[in-house]
Amino acid sequence: MLRVGLLGAGRIGRIHGGNVASHAKAQLVSVADASLEASQVVAAATNATVGTIDGILADENIDAVLICTPTDMHADLIERAAQAGKAVFCEKPVDLAADRIRACLQVVEQAGTPLMIGFNRRFDPNFAALKRRLDEGEVGAIEIVTVISRDPAPPPVDYVKRSGGLFRDMMIHDLDMAAFLLGEAPVEVYAVGSALVDRAIGEAGDVDTAAVILKTASGKIAQISNSRRAAYGYDQRIEVHGSKGMIRAGNVHETTVEAATAAGFRADPVQNFFLERYAAAYRLELDAFVTAVTEGQAPNPSGEDGLRAQLLADAATESAQTGRPVRLG
Amino acid sequence: MLRVGLLGAGRIGRIHGGNVASHAKAQLVSVADASLEASQVVAAATNATVGTIDGILADENIDAVLICTPTDMHADLIERAAQAGKAVFCEKPVDLAADRIRACLQVVEQAGTPLMIGFNRRFDPNFAALKRRLDEGEVGAIEIVTVISRDPAPPPVDYVKRSGGLFRDMMIHDLDMAAFLLGEAPVEVYAVGSALVDRAIGEAGDVDTAAVILKTASGKIAQISNSRRAAYGYDQRIEVHGSKGMIRAGNVHETTVEAATAAGFRADPVQNFFLERYAAAYRLELDAFVTAVTEGQAPNPSGEDGLRAQLLADAATESAQTGRPVRLG
Amino acid sequence: MLRVGLLGAGRIGRIHGGNVASHAKAQLVSVADASLEASQVVAAATNATVGTIDGILADENIDAVLICTPTDMHADLIERAAQAGKAVFCEKPVDLAADRIRACLQVVEQAGTPLMIGFNRRFDPNFAALKRRLDEGEVGAIEIVTVISRDPAPPPVDYVKRSGGLFRDMMIHDLDMAAFLLGEAPVEVYAVGSALVDRAIGEAGDVDTAAVILKTASGKIAQISNSRRAAYGYDQRIEVHGSKGMIRAGNVHETTVEAATAAGFRADPVQNFFLERYAAAYRLELDAFVTAVTEGQAPNPSGEDGLRAQLLADAATESAQTGRPVRLG
Amino acid sequence: MLRVGLLGAGRIGRIHGGNVASHAKAQLVSVADASLEASQVVAAATNATVGTIDGILADENIDAVLICTPTDMHADLIERAAQAGKAVFCEKPVDLAADRIRACLQVVEQAGTPLMIGFNRRFDPNFAALKRRLDEGEVGAIEIVTVISRDPAPPPVDYVKRSGGLFRDMMIHDLDMAAFLLGEAPVEVYAVGSALVDRAIGEAGDVDTAAVILKTASGKIAQISNSRRAAYGYDQRIEVHGSKGMIRAGNVHETTVEAATAAGFRADPVQNFFLERYAAAYRLELDAFVTAVTEGQAPNPSGEDGLRAQLLADAATESAQTGRPVRLG
Repeated sequence: MLRVGLLGAGRIGRIHGGNVASHAKAQLVSVADASLEASQVVAAATNATVGTIDGILADENIDAVLICTPTDMHADLIERAAQAGKAVFCEKPVDLAADRIRACLQVVEQAGTPLMIGFNRRFDPNFAALKRRLDEGEVGAIEIVTVISRDPAPPPVDYVKRSGGLFRDMMIHDLDMAAFLLGEAPVEVYAVGSALVDRAIGEAGDVDTAAVILKTASGKIAQISNSRRAAYGYDQRIEVHGSKGMIRAGNVHETTVEAATAAGFRADPVQNFFLERYAAAYRLELDAFVTAVTEGQAPNPSGEDGLRAQLLADAATESAQTGRPVRLG
Repeated sequence: MLRVGLLGAGRIGRIHGGNVASHAKAQLVSVADASLEASQVVAAATNATVGTIDGILADENIDAVLICTPTDMHADLIERAAQAGKAVFCEKPVDLAADRIRACLQVVEQAGTPLMIGFNRRFDPNFAALKRRLDEGEVGAIEIVTVISRDPAPPPVDYVKRSGGLFRDMMIHDLDMAAFLLGEAPVEVYAVGSALVDRAIGEAGDVDTAAVILKTASGKIAQISNSRRAAYGYDQRIEVHGSKGMIRAGNVHETTVEAATAAGFRADPVQNFFLERYAAAYRLELDAFVTAVTEGQAPNPSGEDGLRAQLLADAATESAQTGRPVRLG
Repeated sequence: MLRVGLLGAGRIGRIHGGNVASHAKAQLVSVADASLEASQVVAAATNATVGTIDGILADENIDAVLICTPTDMHADLIERAAQAGKAVFCEKPVDLAADRIRACLQVVEQAGTPLMIGFNRRFDPNFAALKRRLDEGEVGAIEIVTVISRDPAPPPVDYVKRSGGLFRDMMIHDLDMAAFLLGEAPVEVYAVGSALVDRAIGEAGDVDTAAVILKTASGKIAQISNSRRAAYGYDQRIEVHGSKGMIRAGNVHETTVEAATAAGFRADPVQNFFLERYAAAYRLELDAFVTAVTEGQAPNPSGEDGLRAQLLADAATESAQTGRPVRLG
Repeated sequence: MLRVGLLGAGRIGRIHGGNVASHAKAQLVSVADASLEASQVVAAATNATVGTIDGILADENIDAVLICTPTDMHADLIERAAQAGKAVFCEKPVDLAADRIRACLQVVEQAGTPLMIGFNRRFDPNFAALKRRLDEGEVGAIEIVTVISRDPAPPPVDYVKRSGGLFRDMMIHDLDMAAFLLGEAPVEVYAVGSALVDRAIGEAGDVDTAAVILKTASGKIAQISNSRRAAYGYDQRIEVHGSKGMIRAGNVHETTVEAATAAGFRADPVQNFFLERYAAAYRLELDAFVTAVTEGQAPNPSGEDGLRAQLLADAATESAQTGRPVRLG
């Protein structure tokens, strides 16, 4: 039974806390959050106690922590938890600055403790099945990976200003997925971005509509498009072309109901946003963390995966700003 | 080059006439219709001459006739054409009375001339592919055949009154298809019908909504449903279950366009009616006739197929009227 | 907080027990089963105690019971629980004999306690959305209801012998659904059945392949087809045609992944069986029971719904055996 | 009746010749080809005479010519035909060199004769419906256009060597479509390409797998991906995102048949190549030419459209070769 402390009891912390509580091999021991009320809500729902960050990190009965705090606390907490000997699951990103990530990963390496980064989409049953079948060679050698990812509606501009920008905040998931699926490091990134959805996002120096091309050394290609708006729900699709064919994973509609009238055939919008669409992914992600830690395996996605995605997001940001492709080391 | 005369230049005659004219191995020689204007239109479009029924039947340069006249002329014309040594293609049905069909088929048999009945749906590329794959055993031994067939809108009540009723006029196509796919003669027919679409159809003694169950001696089952109304187009679907799985052929939408908005995903209505949906089927049907006649093979569907479908339609009519299943010889 | 006792801790009891335990307004207090081990497993997973049927029925701290025992105990337990003042949720059917159901419902009525019958499919989110939209008039006046329901594989013949036959054991769900959707009582039932899947089922006097037509007084029609075999998973589909169009709810595939190779486009099989396909339905069903009981509303589906479905199943059984349609009171 | 001469009786010339012959308002008068046999075949099938290029251009009874010769003859023939007062339909491209196109268009402008360029895909009923609905504002202001275009199999290397490269030979269609749908001139083009399908294509200096991003002055984005290989047929898809939603036009499968077995649900491959997939597009394209010329309207796509697509293809070629985005005037 893995004894787990939860650092951060906001929207995503509640999800992970609940998944720990209902996991057969894990137990949520304590919850800490800057808001006492938030930690009380999670604690009550999961039979955990309300604690503090310091207390949880110092508690020898706690084996692992889930870091779900604001991004600017991630790297520090990872380091402290690693030094306290805890296994760490941390929501993406480790940090908005690549150098800070590198330093953090070094601390973790020295501590020799497990670290897993929350790229939840890899655990979506649809995408995971796609990846498994790619690895089994069902469509042969990979040629083009296409990722379409659109949020249902733009976040508040205040959020945008602190987010590091669309490429680091939103597309980082797609960059991780593209690199994960390509199976080979991208060596060149070209990005374009526009503020077509909300003028205020553009005035804040960010974009809300973007497209990226990645290229690997052997010539494999990935295409990603992002938008902060999709009237029909949270659009999350992957399509991979290989030498023997194509494989794709589509959206999940709210129901399977379809109506046909004089206006044509109408199916439901797709599931509205990540809490709904990725509910199973969050459960399976937590399970992968618990399994890796309890069985002594290296967790995946690793800190290095977090760094790679951040470097790709940095490169995309630079490319969109300069208008030039950016080469990666 | 098969030299063809067309008897009847209405809606369906124009289709067949055009298909003869553009066939590489057939030539439309002459067109006859009670309406001079109708025959002139078809003749002009196909480089044929305007003729008369008597003239066409007497013309030794004409090898084959297509009978597209009103139903009550079919049996007589088949007999006269057969006796004149012509190969005959006749639109369904041979006649509304089974005994008249039997007599007619005997005349044809004595004449020894080829006769093909226009069950066009067997030639629809989708249904034909389904049948071929059934025969190849893709889904194993057949267990249940389901046919859904709905017209976009009810015909005028005047038409209904002369039609022989829904089972003989409309469902006859589905009864032929079900028997064709079952690969075994139905021995029992149970039918229910209602006038839910147009009260006047009910007042005229007919139904506009119906369902039928067929059962074969070995226990195979077919289900058919019909309606004279479908707001979303001409609904034509077949689904067959067998010991190894299921195979189905769906509708054809007007285009492949799909739009997604806050209201969901919207695809086009299906193709509106038979001239559009079965355009390819009519071409392939005519080609099958030309091929069979020129190569000396027995045409399919045969006169016997026409009789079988009529007997099934008669049985369904009786069942719906009496409320009891009807057993077939 | 509704305090609940669970009678029967087999496959379906475990599902309901778990759903009670994770319900915010209900608590699983005690579990009874003929197998001590089975009750211990459920009790351990839900923080409930292991009890006995007598103990649970006598326990004044228990508000409601869930009856998940073998069918032949249902009616007795319903009566005893009602007389003990418990709210009752009982898996279908109340009993295999309609008279026994009638007597049981009278006892419940005299006791004045709530009774809900487990027709779980009404709570499937897809079918529930379809029903809601039907009620809102999206496709106008209902004309034809079509239900396709196929199990992935036949049960053991021993089970078949005790089951009451396909119509009472399997199709009862579809008969309830058809009547529920028609919104009007069927007055005539015609059924055919064959043993095409497993000869031993036929030798046991049952069928494994069946089709039914229902007709209401106003002429609405329902079609149902059942099979004990579907190679591609648990096939559960509903399609309803009305005056303004069609609405249907389809199967749920294992994933959204689709691969395209030279062999064509391949999608996953559908979810394999009821525990997977109806997981959400069971949760929502239990929630409806808890809500109805705690808010003092009459639960739905009611005991009368259970009786109606049984009468339809009896009629279908008789029709298949006699070859004649059966009229209902 | 528009009297038409056909210059070039190869694969595409035969298509256009047949479409002229069956057009109600056009007549194929004469056919010229370097191969006498090729022109005889087309002439025989269409009741046209075999002629010569010089003869057709000099024939005052011919109103219009269709130029379906090898690419390197296009510009010269356009000029000669324009100077001879003929309306001209020319297959894409006008020429592989933009300057040559500019000079040619000037000659046409001076001649004052109509010129239409054969971007057939604009006339595909699916894509045309998508464009119409975009123009009607169904998905609001356009944000991202995505075009996926994959040939079933690579052409011979000898063809590749003369083709001008993938961007000019294959992607030019998609570049035209993207610009057409964006409704605004792209100002920046970035392209990557690889030889992943056939090493010999790479050795010939070309690519067989490519992706492009276009950006317009107002920030609209188009993504295109191309491959010379698609195991499942000729992949031709368009998806457009706008402020109110998304609209897409999909592939056309060979039939609507779908089979479900233990391996899942299998649909047909998509139609194999352009002659099949774009058969309707070629008919509608020819009709648009005949209509424009006979009604005195300017044909569309125009010579300017041909130039624009060529400039985009040149820019994409340069970008893929230099690794830098290319800005357009």
